[in-house]
Formats: sequence, structure tokens, C-alpha cells
Amino acid sequence: MSSLPCFNLSAPDTAILPALRHKIDRKTKPLGALGQLEALVLQIGWVQQTLSPELNRPSLTIFAADHGLAQSGVSAYPAEVTPQMVYNFLAGGAATNSFARQHGFAFQVVDAGVNHDFPTDLPLRHEKIAHGTANCLEGPAMSREQALRCLETGRRIAHEEVALGSNVLAFGEMGIGNTSAATLLSHLLADLPIAACTGRGTGLDDAGLARKVATLQAVAERVGPGPHDALNALAEVGGFEVAMMTGAMLGSAEKGALILVDGFIATAALLAAMQIAPAVRDYAVFGHRSQEGGHPLLLAHLKATPLLQLDLRLGEGSGAVLAFPLLQAACGFLNEMASFESAGVSDR
Amino acid sequence: MSSLPCFNLSAPDTAILPALRHKIDRKTKPLGALGQLEALVLQIGWVQQTLSPELNRPSLTIFAADHGLAQSGVSAYPAEVTPQMVYNFLAGGAATNSFARQHGFAFQVVDAGVNHDFPTDLPLRHEKIAHGTANCLEGPAMSREQALRCLETGRRIAHEEVALGSNVLAFGEMGIGNTSAATLLSHLLADLPIAACTGRGTGLDDAGLARKVATLQAVAERVGPGPHDALNALAEVGGFEVAMMTGAMLGSAEKGALILVDGFIATAALLAAMQIAPAVRDYAVFGHRSQEGGHPLLLAHLKATPLLQLDLRLGEGSGAVLAFPLLQAACGFLNEMASFESAGVSDR
Repeated sequence: MSSLPCFNLSAPDTAILPALRHKIDRKTKPLGALGQLEALVLQIGWVQQTLSPELNRPSLTIFAADHGLAQSGVSAYPAEVTPQMVYNFLAGGAATNSFARQHGFAFQVVDAGVNHDFPTDLPLRHEKIAHGTANCLEGPAMSREQALRCLETGRRIAHEEVALGSNVLAFGEMGIGNTSAATLLSHLLADLPIAACTGRGTGLDDAGLARKVATLQAVAERVGPGPHDALNALAEVGGFEVAMMTGAMLGSAEKGALILVDGFIATAALLAAMQIAPAVRDYAVFGHRSQEGGHPLLLAHLKATPLLQLDLRLGEGSGAVLAFPLLQAACGFLNEMASFESAGVSDR
Repeated sequence: MSSLPCFNLSAPDTAILPALRHKIDRKTKPLGALGQLEALVLQIGWVQQTLSPELNRPSLTIFAADHGLAQSGVSAYPAEVTPQMVYNFLAGGAATNSFARQHGFAFQVVDAGVNHDFPTDLPLRHEKIAHGTANCLEGPAMSREQALRCLETGRRIAHEEVALGSNVLAFGEMGIGNTSAATLLSHLLADLPIAACTGRGTGLDDAGLARKVATLQAVAERVGPGPHDALNALAEVGGFEVAMMTGAMLGSAEKGALILVDGFIATAALLAAMQIAPAVRDYAVFGHRSQEGGHPLLLAHLKATPLLQLDLRLGEGSGAVLAFPLLQAACGFLNEMASFESAGVSDR
């Protein structure tokens, strides 16, 4: 059986933190008055190991794939929407395109396993593992080998983005049915209760929601009680886009890049990544807290405080990209503001 | 006695709302999936009376003034910080300068009544009403005539910004002691309890906080029970920067411009403006909810949901300016996203 690749990943050196804190505290503002932006730039400076952090070539990679479980009626939308939205991303017509353009993100879409044959000459990254996962109600969503291929592919993609000059990487996803995968991963890896984690996804009604909960509980029973390792959990419940994002997050942290975490599905991918290499958490900035399903519960489990709470429930990396100007603002105040000394302002 | 000027201010025509809602709902995303950004662009389109809203020449005006009450120990910082911070703004070294540059705001600072003589050739707007307000523990902070001059001056400043091409106006303030004015206005105009509204401002300790509450309760006793009209309340408790901002908000709405509301003090200025012309509320976008003193209570009173919650407690317009990219994102998705029809994406 193939084994998990070794990710070369460690926490940033904490020796720089007192100097960063001092630089923040001497700025011409009351102590702590910039709230979350202060914690944010402390993290960015720590990850980058500098008192003058910079954000270079922000990058958004969207992983798209289909889910066998979608045949069991867990989504309000038909699975054909996955490839349709891929075409929409490539044409620049989705919400995430608009936000990525606004903030100057490099943008790419990866076919991690959409159930559709895209023309090979499309400006799409072709990394298809299969035409959608198997239905995890009946058996594992993918093989352990496929899950490993996802991790390796995601890692390679992140490394390539860093080689192109990016030091802040956002990841989004598109896959009808993937809130189910996120719920199941939250259950298998963090022991969160399925019913509390199950949301309406892109718009289920009450009956649809009850059916989704029952279906996910049946999947969890098939998989059996834990503990599960991340590779096993990803193989059991999918999906290809989630596992590839997990690899990309690990690959980003290996190269010392910041990870911009989007919503519920991206946070579930981070949960899997943390099970493989806990230090990946240090590199993660949480963009947005959605009300979707288990996202608030999962964030609480991770003790994470996202920058935005705008009731988004879209995915596509939207909540990550929208938070980017706050990272810029945090770096901006640290690099540009006067200190009490330099401005001749009286301290308390 | 001089009378309140008539502000020519009415609510935008609601006839456009169904067409705006329809355009939002046909975008390639689940219904409501962009959460607060959908409500935001609905408001922007409504204010601008267009299905294709645009944000032009965003403008930040900072009003600075001193408070006689600061002599009674309501702030952790000495009053000399007000002019020092004005110099810092003019040198570009404050947090708000960094954020305003990041988002391309036109920027100006108004001396509404700082207790300092600035050189006349400084790039500062000289609109000084007096060298700080009187101590409102002993009598009114300013005369009714001075309050009227503040309203007129603020109105003129807003009109000039609109004439220069701005359709979104943010207002900030600087004035050691002005959280006290905001607390007192919240009490006099919205009947909010003083103790619950009194915060640590820029950093009072427990004893300082208790002294501040006792001082503000003594001011409220001196002023006497209401009801108070806005002009009277502004004259009683100040300050010049708050009253001038009130006029500027009214002036913005008169010209159909969006108002970007900052923190507690700016929200108190809006409260006064709403007492003069309630429709000003329709033009107001709330940038940030701080934890400072009465801000959460006052926002709840206004049924307002700010875009950001970052634990800022700085003022200077920082929370308004930081929210601006979300307004751009909201306009961006409405103007740029494909519809289900144009993208060939299946609806539910």
C-alpha cells in the first residue's frame, strides 16, 4: 500500500514575535486599537519572518470535481452544474472572477475530477483523477492511491504558484455535493455531530435537509467508527477537489506561503491537512465565517476567528479573496504608520 | 434664536427595487448566496437609482476638535494629542492615511475646533468654531449658534466633495474626549443608559472608567430630562467635530451620495442627523461594529448591521474606509457576473 508522502513542514520561528509586537505597539494609535488587524499582521510577519511583511502575487486556485453521492439527492442543484460553472469560471462570469479581478489575483481552475470531458485546449488545468468520485453511500469515494495522487497534485500546484512569485495562496472549490463531503470529514476527523453540521448547501428545503442528514448518517455508519487518519477519511468520503486542496494547503505551508482559507469546504480541507501536519495551521488565515452547516462548529473546533462574517455561502474561494484587502491593510499599517517617536505624539 | 436650516432630503424612490432584486437573483449563484453583499448592492443601486451602480472618487473627511470635558479626566490620553494627531494626519503617518491610500480615497482634515493655532498655510481645512468646546459638566458645550454653524459647515464640505465627483463619502473624527460626547448623545437622543454606553475610549483602566461614568451621569443631570432635539443635544454635549459630521452626513444625503459610517462617534453623529431628517438613514452604509462603549447598543437601536467586526477602536474613519472594498465587490458582482441565461448554467 502506498504511503503518505512526507511533508517538510514546521512552525515558523517564534523568536521574531517580541520585535513584531513592539513595532505594532509603537504605532500612533492606542494599544490594541486595530483589533484583529494587529493579530493578523503579527501572524503574517511571523510566517514571513520579517518586520516588514509584503504580499506578492496573490493567487486563487479553484479545484472542481464531482461527487458520486450527489446521485443520492444531497444537493438542490443537478450535478451538471459543476462543469457548467467551470465554463463560467473560464469565461470570467462567476462571482469569484469579479472578486479576483478586483484584488489582482492570479487565477486558475483545476479539473480535479469533474464528470465531463473538457476540450483539451481549454485554459483549464487538467488533473482529472476520475469522472467524479464513487458514491460513498455504497463504498469508498476513491481509492487510497487516488487520494494520494490528489495530495501530490495539490502540493505540486502550490509549489508552482510559489515558484511564480506568490506568497499568499487562496483556494476555492466547485463541486455539487461537496458540503456533504465537508460534513463527513468534520465528523470523521473532528467528531462533530452530523446533524448539527449538515446545512442546506446551495438551497435545500426542509425535506431535502432531513434526507441529506439521513444519507450522511448512513455514510458514516458504512465507514464505521474512528479514529480515522486523514488519508483514509478523504478516500472514504471524498472528494477529489477537497483532497487536492488539502495537498495544496500543505504544499503552501512547506514553502512558507500564507494560506487564505475560504468557507466550510476549504476549512474541512485544512482540518485534513492539520491531521497530516499540524503546523499547517500556523500559515492559515481564515477569510470568512459562513452560516453554512458545520462551518461555525468547525471554526470553533479550530479556535479560528475569520476576518469576515457576511453570510456568504458560495464557495469558489469568494470569502478568501474578499478578505484579502484586510491583509493588505494589516501590512500597510505596519509598514507605513508613524511611531509615537517619529510623529512626536504623546503616549499615555 | 436662529432656526434649524431646512435640509432637502427624501428617501430614494423604491420603484427600482424589484428590478434590482431580479438582476441580483439571476446571477450565477444560489439565491442569496452572497449574503450581506446582496443587501448592500440593493441599497447602493437604490440610492443611485440605477441597475449598474458605480463608486466614484471615494472621499474621507476627518473632523478634529477638542472637548472641554477632557479636563475632567474622561480620557486616557492628554488633550494635546488632538493637534499632534492632526499633524500626523497631514504628514500621512496615521492608520487612516495608510488605509485611505490603499483604497484611493481623496483625503482632507478639517479643524472644526482644535485647541491649538495651526499655521494658516498648512494643507488643513480651517473651519475652527472655537478653541475646543466649553466643559459640558458646567454648562453647554457650545451655543446653539455654534451648533448651527457646525451643521452648515459640514453640509457645505459634503456638497463640495460631491461637486468634485464623489458619490461615496466617509467621515472620521479626532478629538480626545469624544467617546463621552457620543455616549451623551446616545443617552439624550436614543435614551440609551449611560453606564452601559460608557467605554474605555482609547484605554481607561477600571478606576478611570468608573470616574468617566460618574462624570457623564453628572452631565446628563445638568442637562436634564428630555426629550431633546438634535441641535439642543449637540449644543449641550458637543462636540464641534460631531456636529460638523452631522451636517456633512445630511449634506451628503441631500446630494444623493452614500455615507460610509465609521464607529461609535460617527454613528452618534448619524443619530443626530436622523433626528433632523430621518431619510438620511437610507444613504448610510455601516462600515464597522466596534466593541467601544455604546456602539453595539446604538447599532442595535438603529437596526444596523455593519460590514466588518474587527474589534477596531480607533476612529479616524478607519472602519469606514476598510469596508470600502466590500462596496466595490458588491457593485462588481452586479455589474460583471453572468446570469444563468447568459452563462448557460442550469437553475434549480
